[in-house]
Amino acid sequence: MSAILYLLPNLISQSIENSGIPEYNYQVIRKLKHFIVESRKPVNHLLKLAGVKTPFEGINFYEYNEHSNENEIEGIIIPLLKGEDMGLVSDAGYPAIADPGEKIILAAHHHHIRVVPLSGPSSILLALTASGLNAEQFVFHGYLPVKPHQRKLFLQKIENESFKSGYTQIFMDTPYRNQAVFKELIAILKPETWLCVAMELFGNTEKINTLPVKEWKKLSFQPEKKNVVFLLNAGKSSQSS
Amino acid sequence: MSAILYLLPNLISQSIENSGIPEYNYQVIRKLKHFIVESRKPVNHLLKLAGVKTPFEGINFYEYNEHSNENEIEGIIIPLLKGEDMGLVSDAGYPAIADPGEKIILAAHHHHIRVVPLSGPSSILLALTASGLNAEQFVFHGYLPVKPHQRKLFLQKIENESFKSGYTQIFMDTPYRNQAVFKELIAILKPETWLCVAMELFGNTEKINTLPVKEWKKLSFQPEKKNVVFLLNAGKSSQSS
Repeated sequence: MSAILYLLPNLISQSIENSGIPEYNYQVIRKLKHFIVESRKPVNHLLKLAGVKTPFEGINFYEYNEHSNENEIEGIIIPLLKGEDMGLVSDAGYPAIADPGEKIILAAHHHHIRVVPLSGPSSILLALTASGLNAEQFVFHGYLPVKPHQRKLFLQKIENESFKSGYTQIFMDTPYRNQAVFKELIAILKPETWLCVAMELFGNTEKINTLPVKEWKKLSFQPEKKNVVFLLNAGKSSQSS
Repeated sequence: MSAILYLLPNLISQSIENSGIPEYNYQVIRKLKHFIVESRKPVNHLLKLAGVKTPFEGINFYEYNEHSNENEIEGIIIPLLKGEDMGLVSDAGYPAIADPGEKIILAAHHHHIRVVPLSGPSSILLALTASGLNAEQFVFHGYLPVKPHQRKLFLQKIENESFKSGYTQIFMDTPYRNQAVFKELIAILKPETWLCVAMELFGNTEKINTLPVKEWKKLSFQPEKKNVVFLLNAGKSSQSS
């Protein structure tokens, strides 16, 4: 009667050549009858890659996302409480990283249900490792403030923090604002600050580059309206290289 | 003549059932003739899992670790500069996360060599996703200060920061100090602060639990002398659950 909540990372691009999903995850997926999902479509794709036959007969899906109410959680995890394993899958990457899945996980801990995380692609971590910036100490800020003035103050604040602490600063924005954000970054940041732009990881147009802001200014680069992770570091630990 | 530096995550436990390594990574490994390693043994194991035949004839290994000098980097990346792909592998998990590999990666960017990160297990990210704590904003601090007095001040500082910002605080220590650190944590932190202990991920004794400090105090729990990731959050965003 001891059920497991499996945390299943989802694809971060539609590339089939490199899904970034270990074979073990597919084995687990094929055994599960209950999936808590952020939305259906990206999870259908993962199940098909795992070899689960459509129309997914006998498999139950439970939606939990930003529009959900915390009161729904106890109803969603009933299978776990009855002793049946469940999988938690978000639209892309790791569940609970930049989506509300953490509330499901905390509820599982509260009920002493075993939580088993499986490995897979995370654009944050892939961008960090590929950036060449300090990855021994870092901060992930999630999405940038929407209002331009607040965003500017925020970027200056985290640049200053990275200068003092050496911690790499990681953040994202919605794809349609990437070009505006990039323009702001190279206008606002100090010339010597390192900036990494990691674009569409695992996709056909994957592009990852780390340069001081003064070098970025010389290029005619503009990020596409795709998933981008930005990283910056004005501290010693990266400049010493 | 455009070479690629592949970033290859390594196993985080010796469990064969779930290596956490995608099949695609093994395909890449089988094509490579040059590996930059933190040390040999953990990489030999990965190559064997990929099906590379010992005694690894025609494969070259280049060590780069905490004892290395930055002056060695230009010599190590000669194959890349000549147009031959290389793989960067650390002893466990992602290269450059909590090891000096980032200097190799920054050198590659400097020479306009394409850096391609592959996915795999990272104890930091697995612990974060499984903790149920705020994973939309978080800080990774690396290893704790060694001196007890400094460690205590540091833990109080990050608890206070998490209370103000809601950012989850992540850190590690060397296995033999785990028990002392855990004892300090439950003595120093506030009763309502959430503490997650994620022990030996993917190993036979994997154990992940998130509880308020006052609940941890009621248990007779002691972490083993194995790899542990600690996470804490005294902020609203986790307490709202």
